[in-house]
Amino acid sequence: MTDRPTPPARPALVTRLTERFGLRAPIVSAPMAMAAGGRLAAAVSRAGGLGFIGGGYGDAAWIEAQMAEAGNVAVGCGLITWALERREAEAPGLFEWVLARSPAGVFLSFGDPAPFAARARAAGVPVFVQVQSLCGAREALAAGADVIVAQGTEAGGHGATRGTMSLVPEVVDAVGDRAIVLAAGGIADGRGLAAALMLGADGVLVGTRFWAAEEALVAPGFQAAAVAADGDRTLRSSLPDIARGLDWPAPYTIRTLRNGWTGQWEGVPGGPASDAARAAYASAVAEGDAERAPAIAGEAVGLIHAVEPAEAIVARMAEEAREALARW
Amino acid sequence: MTDRPTPPARPALVTRLTERFGLRAPIVSAPMAMAAGGRLAAAVSRAGGLGFIGGGYGDAAWIEAQMAEAGNVAVGCGLITWALERREAEAPGLFEWVLARSPAGVFLSFGDPAPFAARARAAGVPVFVQVQSLCGAREALAAGADVIVAQGTEAGGHGATRGTMSLVPEVVDAVGDRAIVLAAGGIADGRGLAAALMLGADGVLVGTRFWAAEEALVAPGFQAAAVAADGDRTLRSSLPDIARGLDWPAPYTIRTLRNGWTGQWEGVPGGPASDAARAAYASAVAEGDAERAPAIAGEAVGLIHAVEPAEAIVARMAEEAREALARW
Ligand SMILES: Cc1cc2nc3c(=O)[nH]c(=O)nc-3n(C[C@H](O)[C@H](O)[C@H](O)COP(=O)(O)O)c2cc1C
Ligand SMILES: Cc1cc2nc3c(=O)[nH]c(=O)nc-3n(C[C@H](O)[C@H](O)[C@H](O)COP(=O)(O)O)c2cc1C
Repeated sequence: MTDRPTPPARPALVTRLTERFGLRAPIVSAPMAMAAGGRLAAAVSRAGGLGFIGGGYGDAAWIEAQMAEAGNVAVGCGLITWALERREAEAPGLFEWVLARSPAGVFLSFGDPAPFAARARAAGVPVFVQVQSLCGAREALAAGADVIVAQGTEAGGHGATRGTMSLVPEVVDAVGDRAIVLAAGGIADGRGLAAALMLGADGVLVGTRFWAAEEALVAPGFQAAAVAADGDRTLRSSLPDIARGLDWPAPYTIRTLRNGWTGQWEGVPGGPASDAARAAYASAVAEGDAERAPAIAGEAVGLIHAVEPAEAIVARMAEEAREALARW
Repeated sequence: MTDRPTPPARPALVTRLTERFGLRAPIVSAPMAMAAGGRLAAAVSRAGGLGFIGGGYGDAAWIEAQMAEAGNVAVGCGLITWALERREAEAPGLFEWVLARSPAGVFLSFGDPAPFAARARAAGVPVFVQVQSLCGAREALAAGADVIVAQGTEAGGHGATRGTMSLVPEVVDAVGDRAIVLAAGGIADGRGLAAALMLGADGVLVGTRFWAAEEALVAPGFQAAAVAADGDRTLRSSLPDIARGLDWPAPYTIRTLRNGWTGQWEGVPGGPASDAARAAYASAVAEGDAERAPAIAGEAVGLIHAVEPAEAIVARMAEEAREALARW
């Protein structure tokens, strides 16, 4: 590249997302339950993107510690909507407490966002809603989402069946100027970011790539397995949810690497539901044993070749996207 | 003098694909079995893309008639590899006959391309191989494919599980300069074409959008159902293959619209395999009854709002892609 006489002008990656949130790159890191802590979220925000803490199933003490870890850097907080709904029904307070901390945004996925979106808007906190279908995007719009994340099936973690490539432009058409739209699922480099912009998205939500960042709260054994794997080596299943006793509603499944453990349990009626199977899974997770529990990661693992600092990931994604765009 | 700002220069969509095949747009129409006849293929080629006849399971009389229909226009011919392999084992000759017609390319999908690719290369006919995984791309490369089509799960018709968004750049990285790479699956407009170029592809293979072209050999009832449907309304299954008595190998399933018929049979052990169920399916197909047999189409149906001439589709896709690229 350096021997080119006149490098083409690099376009600035300015979108509705960067303008609304004052970002230098249209890159948001996913609120990955337990894996995205305050250090990762803050590193992404400091690098010019927007970082989210993965509040997941709503462990208040963990969330508080991670918010403290992020310090003064503006980060958002994600919560799994169906779990939040159950928790608030039993013991209200967590959502109010999160809003009172004035996060850069709340991120709601997997469930009906309407009641929580309304409360966040009333508190002046921007609402991100992740959806897996056109139907979900319409519901998010009706709920008053500020940012709608169209998540394709290639994504790591929980999700559903539609692919990123056609879901994103279809959601863009349905949403128009009523909300900001992000693309998620299978995006791990600047080519994916540039492609998302072409599809009409205002930016990207990136999970797996930041899960393999130095700052992520992920055991090195799992990260090493993901770096070594190609993108053919994943599957969507309910196996880890069964092994954790998590009662995930349809249609959501979780994308992980395939490994010895998934091979052992795939197709076994009932799955790893026994006490022994659950205990074995929990200890494998605790030990970071990527053969006895699968890394939670998406098809984008095939584009990831090293564990790196989040800042380097943000910078390279933006630079690669500018290069790809400038080439045309 | 007007004070209208100078419109940004539109980039020419020149890629290794357009240069190798002398195209004006990096758009290839899919060899959709029975649906892509000579009229559609020729219309796409005349419009500056490259059209393929969908030779499917290898009905020589049908292929001959469609080649005649295409006349002097350069078009290619697709064949389903596993079906070709069985046919050539029983009664050799079809593949030789196709090669002797000097098509613009032969297109091999769903099976081991190696023996046929070698024969096509020996005959000087360019070889397109469609794959659904990184592993498949490596096999296609080893087989000597000139063009490797990375097909994502959002595609209409037969395919597998990986999504377009990460499969394409991963295949691009693996292939390098040893073959041309096309993106397929979920691409129906210029945004998808521009996105594919960003992912590093040399162009796109488009099925569903051309299936809904005026020239396609598709009953109006099926096209109308697809135009009316959004992208949430599809599923991958084996139901139509069971109803047609087609013995498709793993891992391939076929993406169709959901309708009354798929709802009736989904989850029914054995599926629509009885003589009565097969006869009912065949008559629904013959009648173009989109409630009693499903339209074979992909998630891109959500981006299609009218049946149009193929020429208009090619021209608009190229123009929209140039616009999207020029915007950055
Ligand atoms: C380890 C992991 C955990 C995740 N946990 C959550 C979560 O708690 N809440 C959520 O909304 N999304 C979660 N996701 C999904 C992400 O929000 C996002 O959709 C996905 O990572 C995007 O696709 P990618 O992994 O290909 O970048 C998770 C993803 C991963 C990889
Ligand atoms: C009606 C229909 C029939 C198809 N038949 C074939 C076929 O015979 N051989 C083949 O290689 N691909 C076939 N395909 C798949 C296409 O080659 C291509 O991968 C797909 O259409 C691309 O995704 P899209 O439908 O979203 O454009 C078919 C697709 C459709 C929609």
